[in-house]
Amino acid sequence: MAYELHYWPTIQGRGEFVRLALEAAGAPYLDVARGAEAAGQGVAAMQRWLDDATLAHPPFAPPFLRDGALWVGQTVAILHHLGPALKLVGRSEQARVWTQQIQLTIADMVTEAQDTHHPLASHLHYDEQKPEALRRAAAFCKLRMPKFLSWFERILAANPAGSRHLVGGKLSYADLSLFQLVEGLRYAFPRAAQQALAQTHEVVALHDRVAAIPKVAAYLRSPRRIAFNEQGIFRHYPELDLG
Amino acid sequence: MAYELHYWPTIQGRGEFVRLALEAAGAPYLDVARGAEAAGQGVAAMQRWLDDATLAHPPFAPPFLRDGALWVGQTVAILHHLGPALKLVGRSEQARVWTQQIQLTIADMVTEAQDTHHPLASHLHYDEQKPEALRRAAAFCKLRMPKFLSWFERILAANPAGSRHLVGGKLSYADLSLFQLVEGLRYAFPRAAQQALAQTHEVVALHDRVAAIPKVAAYLRSPRRIAFNEQGIFRHYPELDLG
Repeated sequence: MAYELHYWPTIQGRGEFVRLALEAAGAPYLDVARGAEAAGQGVAAMQRWLDDATLAHPPFAPPFLRDGALWVGQTVAILHHLGPALKLVGRSEQARVWTQQIQLTIADMVTEAQDTHHPLASHLHYDEQKPEALRRAAAFCKLRMPKFLSWFERILAANPAGSRHLVGGKLSYADLSLFQLVEGLRYAFPRAAQQALAQTHEVVALHDRVAAIPKVAAYLRSPRRIAFNEQGIFRHYPELDLG
Repeated sequence: MAYELHYWPTIQGRGEFVRLALEAAGAPYLDVARGAEAAGQGVAAMQRWLDDATLAHPPFAPPFLRDGALWVGQTVAILHHLGPALKLVGRSEQARVWTQQIQLTIADMVTEAQDTHHPLASHLHYDEQKPEALRRAAAFCKLRMPKFLSWFERILAANPAGSRHLVGGKLSYADLSLFQLVEGLRYAFPRAAQQALAQTHEVVALHDRVAAIPKVAAYLRSPRRIAFNEQGIFRHYPELDLG
């Protein structure tokens, strides 16, 4: 049975980390909120599940995944759950924990990237918090982005199985997510990302290897890949980038 | 062998979610950074591991845990790893994933609570971002706190095994963390927390049951429990609370 992924239909957002894992594994899935309402899909279908009082394990927010009788929300939990079935995580408990730890750190950076354009409140528009966004983005570009990226560089260099992957000698969902993180940073903050990534060659090399994986490359060329835009997490507001 | 917990020695912070799990289980552990430098402990010992270039799995930031040869960072990953050994999570994959999903949502709320006093940059002082903190805290108290707490209330009410626990019919690390979250909200935002918790009786009842667990109660009375203060995540700045 195909997985059912529930996420906002017009943005990459956090759902993209799940989409990339499903696509890289060639797993069948339905991107429910992008389907037709006439077919019982669309955003209304996603919203029904969010509001469904009969669910024992209701998600707090998208993305969430239905895997047969199992419902799972939160990007990190979804990827942890999918990892073994998609062969995108090592078999040992140690490999699963380490992959999850990396994913949690990627998730922290994603939240900080999102907060650059919404430092005060998610329900307000960017224009209502622009002076604050300028200050938050400056700290993100100058301090946080290099700090996070240098940690990814460090763990790639420290991988006993070599720096081609984050965990062991095989592709994991964390590799796919780090690819997506680099994509997002380059879109939102082209100057800051260029400057920071110039110091992290292993991260860039991993990004390029992931982009060249045939199933990933095919996905990125397909209409299933939504373009970055200014409704998502990574938004290109030139004034927020390094000057 | 005792677990080694590494976290800042003068605050509850994110380390407290791990301390509570270890204490509730009666597990032996060393709170390394609170030990004496003369004994090879203290903050310097924690910092040495953060900087250790020979670690294959270096943590990005505290808290992190040493379990024999295994190093694990990130609160959610630490608790996921400890859960089975401490008997603080169900045995089924479904129970482990659901407990983790709840913990991730608690972690999201903790980050939002922290951002109320540091909306612009973690390296700046509160006084350097106070007008922004006032706006962020208002949105947190009015919108986000009730939204998160009502989700915890909903999942307690929806638990097929009854509302005494978040997952199944047994205590899990998520129960302990929800207790800590309520403690923190009441300390930082007494008026907003009182108003929001008045709508979530199951959450309050769970908090009270956790506080009465003998090992938890003994810990809370002990000098091992650090008092809340204005260096931690939950800070009581009266101006940030509801008016």
